[in-house]
Amino acid sequence: MEKKSGSPSKTAGKPILCKAAVCRAAGEPLVIEEIQVDPPKAWEVRIKILCSSLCHSDVTIWQSNTSPLAVFPRILGHESVGEVESVGEHVEEVKEGDRVLPVCIPTCGECRECKFKKKNVCSMFDVKRQNAMPRDGSSRFKDLKGEVVHHFLCLSSFSQYTVVDVSQVVKISTEIPIDKACLLSCGVATGVGSVWKVAEVEEGSTVAVFGLGAVGLAVVEGARLQGASKIIGIDPNPAKFEIGKKFGMTKFVDPTACGEKSVSQVIKELTNGSGADYCFECVGLASLVEEAFASSAEGGRTILIGFDISGTPLKLNSLDLLQGRSVMGSFLGGVKPKLDIPVLVKKYLDKELNLDGFVTHEVSLEEINKAFDYLLQGKSIRCLIWMNK
Amino acid sequence: MEKKSGSPSKTAGKPILCKAAVCRAAGEPLVIEEIQVDPPKAWEVRIKILCSSLCHSDVTIWQSNTSPLAVFPRILGHESVGEVESVGEHVEEVKEGDRVLPVCIPTCGECRECKFKKKNVCSMFDVKRQNAMPRDGSSRFKDLKGEVVHHFLCLSSFSQYTVVDVSQVVKISTEIPIDKACLLSCGVATGVGSVWKVAEVEEGSTVAVFGLGAVGLAVVEGARLQGASKIIGIDPNPAKFEIGKKFGMTKFVDPTACGEKSVSQVIKELTNGSGADYCFECVGLASLVEEAFASSAEGGRTILIGFDISGTPLKLNSLDLLQGRSVMGSFLGGVKPKLDIPVLVKKYLDKELNLDGFVTHEVSLEEINKAFDYLLQGKSIRCLIWMNK
Ligand SMILES: [Zn+2]
Ligand SMILES: [Zn+2]
Ligand SMILES: [Zn+2]
Ligand SMILES: [Zn+2]
Repeated sequence: MEKKSGSPSKTAGKPILCKAAVCRAAGEPLVIEEIQVDPPKAWEVRIKILCSSLCHSDVTIWQSNTSPLAVFPRILGHESVGEVESVGEHVEEVKEGDRVLPVCIPTCGECRECKFKKKNVCSMFDVKRQNAMPRDGSSRFKDLKGEVVHHFLCLSSFSQYTVVDVSQVVKISTEIPIDKACLLSCGVATGVGSVWKVAEVEEGSTVAVFGLGAVGLAVVEGARLQGASKIIGIDPNPAKFEIGKKFGMTKFVDPTACGEKSVSQVIKELTNGSGADYCFECVGLASLVEEAFASSAEGGRTILIGFDISGTPLKLNSLDLLQGRSVMGSFLGGVKPKLDIPVLVKKYLDKELNLDGFVTHEVSLEEINKAFDYLLQGKSIRCLIWMNK
Repeated sequence: MEKKSGSPSKTAGKPILCKAAVCRAAGEPLVIEEIQVDPPKAWEVRIKILCSSLCHSDVTIWQSNTSPLAVFPRILGHESVGEVESVGEHVEEVKEGDRVLPVCIPTCGECRECKFKKKNVCSMFDVKRQNAMPRDGSSRFKDLKGEVVHHFLCLSSFSQYTVVDVSQVVKISTEIPIDKACLLSCGVATGVGSVWKVAEVEEGSTVAVFGLGAVGLAVVEGARLQGASKIIGIDPNPAKFEIGKKFGMTKFVDPTACGEKSVSQVIKELTNGSGADYCFECVGLASLVEEAFASSAEGGRTILIGFDISGTPLKLNSLDLLQGRSVMGSFLGGVKPKLDIPVLVKKYLDKELNLDGFVTHEVSLEEINKAFDYLLQGKSIRCLIWMNK
């Protein structure tokens, strides 16, 4: 029953039957099922997902059974690229056939947060605390028994079709290849954005990156783009040495091979004794944030990116802070999606931003559970899931 | 033996005998003594101090006996304004008769820190860890028995004459009154700078200021200048209500009168439930930093200004950080002295920056211990010490 993208208007206004990877219980393999996707209501966009990629947050959320949002069945997935199938009433920003990135942060353009230069989390909808559409709190998904299937981050990209609020849709150029565009909807935007928008890394700075997964490598790429003079990658997997170098990493530290020295001592030695100007924690461990902070120079910034669901308290020495150090959190790398993602697309098209090397695996929707295995086994950086193959 | 400022050249190259307030033991009253001030060596400037004011850091340092820098006798004082008496070899930036602010951060203009836009602590000299001149490590002060008298922050402004490295001298306009200029060498620069350079408060933001001493009031003034929409002052002294209002404070919270509610709950209520966009801790207590952080909105910044010599560890919830909150330290409010202080002087002369209301007391050098009493008793905001009256 899947509709061809060449004739989107034929399905407009009607429910679509398509395949989706449904999560029926925490930590259990996703089930490929036929589901029904309702037409978009006012301010909503129905999107044909072309490809998704598996981001670490999907895995963390998939494993979690304790969150009040862990309701089942549900459709995960939040890093994707698609094509507008049809739009609901009042939607003028995109139209059928447009290439779009569905993103985890809305932009209403009207709230105080949207108007501030430095804030990027719109306060109109709190999509992190939603398992349905943000505007009316209802689902657009049903399984074939008629049971409601819940949304995730108001995105649910592990479906051939999904419905997303227009505030979470970014129109992009069709010149950027699909598999590259996909990365810019979450992981790479987060990494590059953290360097560009949060840390505001200056030319000639020294940078330390803790954890060389997709986001960490995107931080390395962002630091290269900003003209950092030293980019030190820290990862217990020695295979990351060669991978990191391709993104512009200049030094590699394997924390298991530092002997008596702490990682922060090694980083200080690599930075003329002063520590790195910018330290990025891309793993999500409180202890590693503390190590990153200890590795930072006076006047330096430590940026938290890793998603630490445990909420372990962070202990920081206040004197170190008073010497001008900062610890900065952010969401989606401080990126204002509708404003900044098109800039990243342009940087890619202008051959400034390198997006090669992130995608290590590709699977079809039917094989989506393999993508989870690859990530959990540390084999993949990004695994693409082609939704219509 | 004090020289008149009208004939500075007569003393050039010779030692000067003048009065200074000497600290001979931690926590004991300063002693007004005649001392000898040597001529400036290369790259040094001998300054006739016109007026000093007592900053809280002087009091903290005066009380401390444990720091490796607590050497005696020494001359404290670091917030002041003066006139160049003579200059050493190679000094071209200032000349005899120039009005200058001696400041606690050098600017060499050559090191990597000086070249970065966001860093303000020059790495050429670490004046915080010096009790002598920064370039050759020797003192320019002797008492009348010939014993060396030590420097503090390479400034020692509680003397009628002092010698300061040219890197720590900021030339300013003579149009700004002496008593106003003095404030810009430390406390007010720190408060206004924290708003302007560190937090980068945006127009329409909400601001909470913990502690309404001179620096806290300067934060209020800075927030008003940046166009903050709400400025909430928090202080256990109810007298600060009227004082804060004069600087632009819009709401006052007395933490001892919040009943069952925590201060952060009250601040959330005052900010439509979201918390303040920018929270400034101007006291120097780890527990108060944690309360300030708890009072901050998603995407908000908490700025540490208070000088906490105890180094109590700070405990922060990492999930709160991941929701885009930041904790930022700084030194001298992120101000690059030679670049930014002249801008603050201009803002004063243009009647944008208000410097009225900070000075509550004035004493002569002979009465300097009264300034300490006023501050310790919470009576003064700033007490000026006229060095030649
Ligand atoms: Zn993600
Ligand atoms: Zn908004
Ligand atoms: Zn001070
Ligand atoms: Zn310098």
